[in-house]
Amino acid sequence: MKLLVVGTVAFDTIHTPFDKAEKIVGGAATYIGWAASHFVNNICLVSVVGDDFPANELADMRANGMNTEGIQIKEGRKSFFWEGKYSMDMNHRDTLVTDLNVLADFDPVIPKSYQDCDFLMLGNLSPQVQMRVIEQVPNKPKFVALDTMNFWMDNALEDLKAVIKKVDLITINDEEARQLSGEYSLRKAAKVIQAMGPEYLVIKKGEHGALLFHGEDMFFAPALPLEEVFDPTGAGDSFAGGFIGYLVKTNDLSFDNMKRALVYGSAVASYCVEQFGINNVKSLTPRMIHDRISDFVELMTFSAQASHLE
Amino acid sequence: MKLLVVGTVAFDTIHTPFDKAEKIVGGAATYIGWAASHFVNNICLVSVVGDDFPANELADMRANGMNTEGIQIKEGRKSFFWEGKYSMDMNHRDTLVTDLNVLADFDPVIPKSYQDCDFLMLGNLSPQVQMRVIEQVPNKPKFVALDTMNFWMDNALEDLKAVIKKVDLITINDEEARQLSGEYSLRKAAKVIQAMGPEYLVIKKGEHGALLFHGEDMFFAPALPLEEVFDPTGAGDSFAGGFIGYLVKTNDLSFDNMKRALVYGSAVASYCVEQFGINNVKSLTPRMIHDRISDFVELMTFSAQASHLE
Repeated sequence: MKLLVVGTVAFDTIHTPFDKAEKIVGGAATYIGWAASHFVNNICLVSVVGDDFPANELADMRANGMNTEGIQIKEGRKSFFWEGKYSMDMNHRDTLVTDLNVLADFDPVIPKSYQDCDFLMLGNLSPQVQMRVIEQVPNKPKFVALDTMNFWMDNALEDLKAVIKKVDLITINDEEARQLSGEYSLRKAAKVIQAMGPEYLVIKKGEHGALLFHGEDMFFAPALPLEEVFDPTGAGDSFAGGFIGYLVKTNDLSFDNMKRALVYGSAVASYCVEQFGINNVKSLTPRMIHDRISDFVELMTFSAQASHLE
Repeated sequence: MKLLVVGTVAFDTIHTPFDKAEKIVGGAATYIGWAASHFVNNICLVSVVGDDFPANELADMRANGMNTEGIQIKEGRKSFFWEGKYSMDMNHRDTLVTDLNVLADFDPVIPKSYQDCDFLMLGNLSPQVQMRVIEQVPNKPKFVALDTMNFWMDNALEDLKAVIKKVDLITINDEEARQLSGEYSLRKAAKVIQAMGPEYLVIKKGEHGALLFHGEDMFFAPALPLEEVFDPTGAGDSFAGGFIGYLVKTNDLSFDNMKRALVYGSAVASYCVEQFGINNVKSLTPRMIHDRISDFVELMTFSAQASHLE
């Protein structure tokens, strides 16, 4: 199974209430790729960087099952840079700096060797760029997932609607689901959004977990309450990467397997937030993932049996 | 099994983004009592009202397993009144009016017939009043639960600490857990709060569900995503009433049963928010509760079995 991942590969400067990290490696495709790499060894990355992006980071990706042929390197230019600051409760962040740099005129080119991908994960990027990718994959992959955000709803809604019509699943947060649908109730919002095209909807609620909708089916995976939440950056992308990675590995699109994928995504995301940047996600082991899945099982499992109401 | 419930019996005026309800029956003890009445038929209420409180409401309580002997009726005075307005996303509310009225000098008197209660639920009231109740129950009940809020942390912290030292479980929301403990991580906050006395902690997260902590054990019950969320008023108290009611009915304080109680509490709360005021909680049937428990089982159940990582 081959997974195609499109998204940013970039630098982040991150301020949390506890610490600061300057110009560390980040970007949606970085987090999605590394998260998925623990499940799949045939990942094709599509992105763009400047010549300031460390070659050893790309080499490290290649050494871990990621093909970087589709990452354009623009000589004499700089990589995308984002700087943000988290609030005290880490549930909100303000953007301090967004330097688009190479992203400003990014035109994704899908190498020939990528075109037979089975799964496609479109990381958060402009809907036009996401559409350009879909157009370059002649045979529709088995499953296409798309992540987006309120910025595109505010600034490119028609383009966004056009691209989400073509995907199987979208991931957004609860506020974005309300904005996109015009419905307060997430259950109603899910119906409206599913009518826009995607059969599946994942609503990410950060430290409050994630909801999966498919027709009348609904499943909730909590976020694992952690001793240390150090840096939420990349958590949503790590979640998406773990989710899609698990789907690719199992090659099973049943709702029961999607539920598991949601928990696997949550498990990977729970490791992401324990450290600054990508390092914790990079260094995951099967044992670590397995242990955390057990934590989720404990957190979520109850028996309704002893009910005396029957 | 006898359950003693202390809290307000009052009037609320409620503004939601969709509608408004004027001076309807509310109060913590009202919601807790009605929620618990679907599990227990021996509930002893302690509260205070003015002579403006409708006698038929008290009669209705009595007809449904609630003893109102401990509800003082103050002639020539008015019942506690609260008026509040919910934000568009219903996750926040502003208090517009708080008329303490009879609550200003409330001195709870526990009738003799109440003193052998097995379970005690202290609804949100001043910690001094909660302590006065504990002092009047000579033999410590099997289980004492306490609900409180940030107002008492801001204004009566030492009294609050004194009373929570004497209880088995406290329920607060996530912000309050962070405030009371001084810890951002809810897991660390839980440890700090448990060290203050209560063996069990329930962190209520509104539309995001509820967390139960006991030692190293942790369990999460999501809130059920609903088509209609009409009025969140009383949801926390309905949750508490369903939770404690289920515990009383089953008379089982194992962690496994506490988990079930958390889901039963969430089920009752999910009905509460579907209508203004207490009516939906009043008119629950065993079948309705059972159906919603099934909804929770579907929402929460996944099998980790198909994991290919082993």
